[in-house]
Amino acid sequence: MTEKKMLLIVCDGLSDRPVKEFERKTPLQAAKKPAMDALARHGISGTMDVIGPGIIPGSDTAHLALFGYDPYKVYTGRGPIEAAGAGIPLEAGDVAFRCNFATSDDSFRVIDRRAGRIKNGTAELAKAVSGMEIEGVKVVFKEGSEHRGVLVLKGPGLDHRVSDVDPHAEARVLEARPLAPGAEKTARVVNEFVMRSSKILASHAVNRQREGDHLRPANIILPRGAGSTGELEPFGERYQVKAAAVAGVTLVKGICRMVGMDVPEVAGATGGLDTDYAAKAEAALRMLETHDFVFVNVKAGDVAGHDGDFGTKTRVVESIDMMLGLILKDLHESVVVAVTCDHSTPVSVKEHSADPVPLAISGGGTRIDGVKEFDEISAASGALGRIRGTELMPIMLGMADRAKKFGA
Amino acid sequence: MTEKKMLLIVCDGLSDRPVKEFERKTPLQAAKKPAMDALARHGISGTMDVIGPGIIPGSDTAHLALFGYDPYKVYTGRGPIEAAGAGIPLEAGDVAFRCNFATSDDSFRVIDRRAGRIKNGTAELAKAVSGMEIEGVKVVFKEGSEHRGVLVLKGPGLDHRVSDVDPHAEARVLEARPLAPGAEKTARVVNEFVMRSSKILASHAVNRQREGDHLRPANIILPRGAGSTGELEPFGERYQVKAAAVAGVTLVKGICRMVGMDVPEVAGATGGLDTDYAAKAEAALRMLETHDFVFVNVKAGDVAGHDGDFGTKTRVVESIDMMLGLILKDLHESVVVAVTCDHSTPVSVKEHSADPVPLAISGGGTRIDGVKEFDEISAASGALGRIRGTELMPIMLGMADRAKKFGA
Repeated sequence: MTEKKMLLIVCDGLSDRPVKEFERKTPLQAAKKPAMDALARHGISGTMDVIGPGIIPGSDTAHLALFGYDPYKVYTGRGPIEAAGAGIPLEAGDVAFRCNFATSDDSFRVIDRRAGRIKNGTAELAKAVSGMEIEGVKVVFKEGSEHRGVLVLKGPGLDHRVSDVDPHAEARVLEARPLAPGAEKTARVVNEFVMRSSKILASHAVNRQREGDHLRPANIILPRGAGSTGELEPFGERYQVKAAAVAGVTLVKGICRMVGMDVPEVAGATGGLDTDYAAKAEAALRMLETHDFVFVNVKAGDVAGHDGDFGTKTRVVESIDMMLGLILKDLHESVVVAVTCDHSTPVSVKEHSADPVPLAISGGGTRIDGVKEFDEISAASGALGRIRGTELMPIMLGMADRAKKFGA
Repeated sequence: MTEKKMLLIVCDGLSDRPVKEFERKTPLQAAKKPAMDALARHGISGTMDVIGPGIIPGSDTAHLALFGYDPYKVYTGRGPIEAAGAGIPLEAGDVAFRCNFATSDDSFRVIDRRAGRIKNGTAELAKAVSGMEIEGVKVVFKEGSEHRGVLVLKGPGLDHRVSDVDPHAEARVLEARPLAPGAEKTARVVNEFVMRSSKILASHAVNRQREGDHLRPANIILPRGAGSTGELEPFGERYQVKAAAVAGVTLVKGICRMVGMDVPEVAGATGGLDTDYAAKAEAALRMLETHDFVFVNVKAGDVAGHDGDFGTKTRVVESIDMMLGLILKDLHESVVVAVTCDHSTPVSVKEHSADPVPLAISGGGTRIDGVKEFDEISAASGALGRIRGTELMPIMLGMADRAKKFGA
């Protein structure tokens, strides 16, 4: 049997709950979405607990599960994912933190966790504090978007089980504390980095300029979310595929890079409501020419869900459907295509929820059930039943005739 | 998002199989049950393997699973549950047994495992044998309903892994044997208690009176079902809720007390066919005013199932439906309400069976599927799919916006 290619399209947060004011429909039920419905009609549907029943997935843990990794085994905080997103290669034993550039007063009290939402100059600030050595540990610091940054510690004797420096409020800067025996050194190194870097930042030209412009200086770095990458078997080796990802959001790109997917830059793929859907469709089709597995993430549904905006979310469904239509039009029918979500972000909740997500798969050797529409309720009557996120990859591999035999 | 309240109604043993003589309907299919059907119509349905596919649940293990505890991890015999039901507080290391007052002849052969179904005088008999000390172990004995009692051993070096003294038949009284190294002392203490108590009972006024009345004397105590409470995380802490239970049966009350729920006494809640359904409805509504989670158990369906009585079981469905109607009439629509069973007790079997049970949930953020009736077959086409008992609490918490997020 010929191995088939696979395309996984994740509509971030698009899954929802019925909304009373809109005839108790979900955005998926209210929108016109001929391409999604055609996919459901020509394939097999089901629902999916991305992490498990009653567990609210984060976008990070959800994508790990969708890629077949048990997040309870491999997820040790968001730091490593941000580091991967920022393009800092992590080695075993490294510890990574998400950071904010922030503003503190002389008594180390945070007065603005985002340093006046600083947009320019963070690259220079990052360069000024990166590269120092503390207790034999090399410190790498890199700026992210806006006020964000990533701290990576490289050296012997590190342990990610330390508490946050970030007080997560306008309060006194915390000291990192060891949360397990063996993490004392890491806590000391982080605290020393925060102190040393604050001196460098205070006198830096970028901040003197900001003060002159009556902007808040980025005079302190607040690390949080310490983590190490465990033994994460690369996606390509695990499934014997060449894999690529089309995504706009740093966090999702980070996960894809962390598991070893190719992540091309796609002009116009912003990760926001203004993303260029046609550009994503085109990139997905182009990647499928050279790769066995292509993953596409569209973030906009999650954004509209967090905003609690039913109208916008319904239009996002229709935009994603247009993108899917462009892809399906030019796609060979042997390609196994799955459309699903990483979690629900109901407009009535404005946050992620634990509700299972709809899933439809067609193409390749997929069976065809009686489901005719793609939404949370229609999918639940499909022949796939109710599955777990970590089961999606094995199921897709099976339909693509890439599964392994156990026994004789 | 506002956290919502939760109501879990368990119709003990109400789930059934089709009965040939009644148009191959189940009691749920044959009964008129407008409230249950309305709940299904306005919510989401599914079926549930309370323990696991093909496992016949006991009422005790079933309720542990429904409350989210893995019974394979926390259940070590029925003794501790009976002890909790009888109001004897257990500490770590205590070993508890279910017991029967029985009648034996001079050669320690059981001639009646229920001592002529003794109804009166067991409190005096229990008092006479309770309080002795054997090998440094304090012996607590308390009567239960009719011929039943509970034995609790308190002291150092005990282990619940001992065999039953009760021969479960009209046969010679057994000696408790250690089933694991370290349980020898416990076996000795139990055997010594059985011998000493039999001497006390033989000469007790209650038994002399019974013999005078030509009734069988309760002259021996037969312990069985030894168990210890493991580390059972209290329900309230586990789910961050204030929880109450409305139940009539000692065993179910025991489990609820064991996990730390408030268990008010409800006048008329007998746990039998004659239970006061309106009183239970009223108690459930009253508890919901002061608690976040209220559990209601109605035993009557199980009783009718054990009796193999289709007509009675159908009427029990209608009585429970009346109770549900009273509750739903006065309930705020934000409350997440689940109706299900702890196991099936088919009238054709007259015992618990492994058949999955129907489940319907409505209110709060619940999705709405196309299921219009509450019964074993209709529920199976619902959008919840087929779940496990231990998944019910996480799913309800998710719908009540009380679930926890894993990841970012």
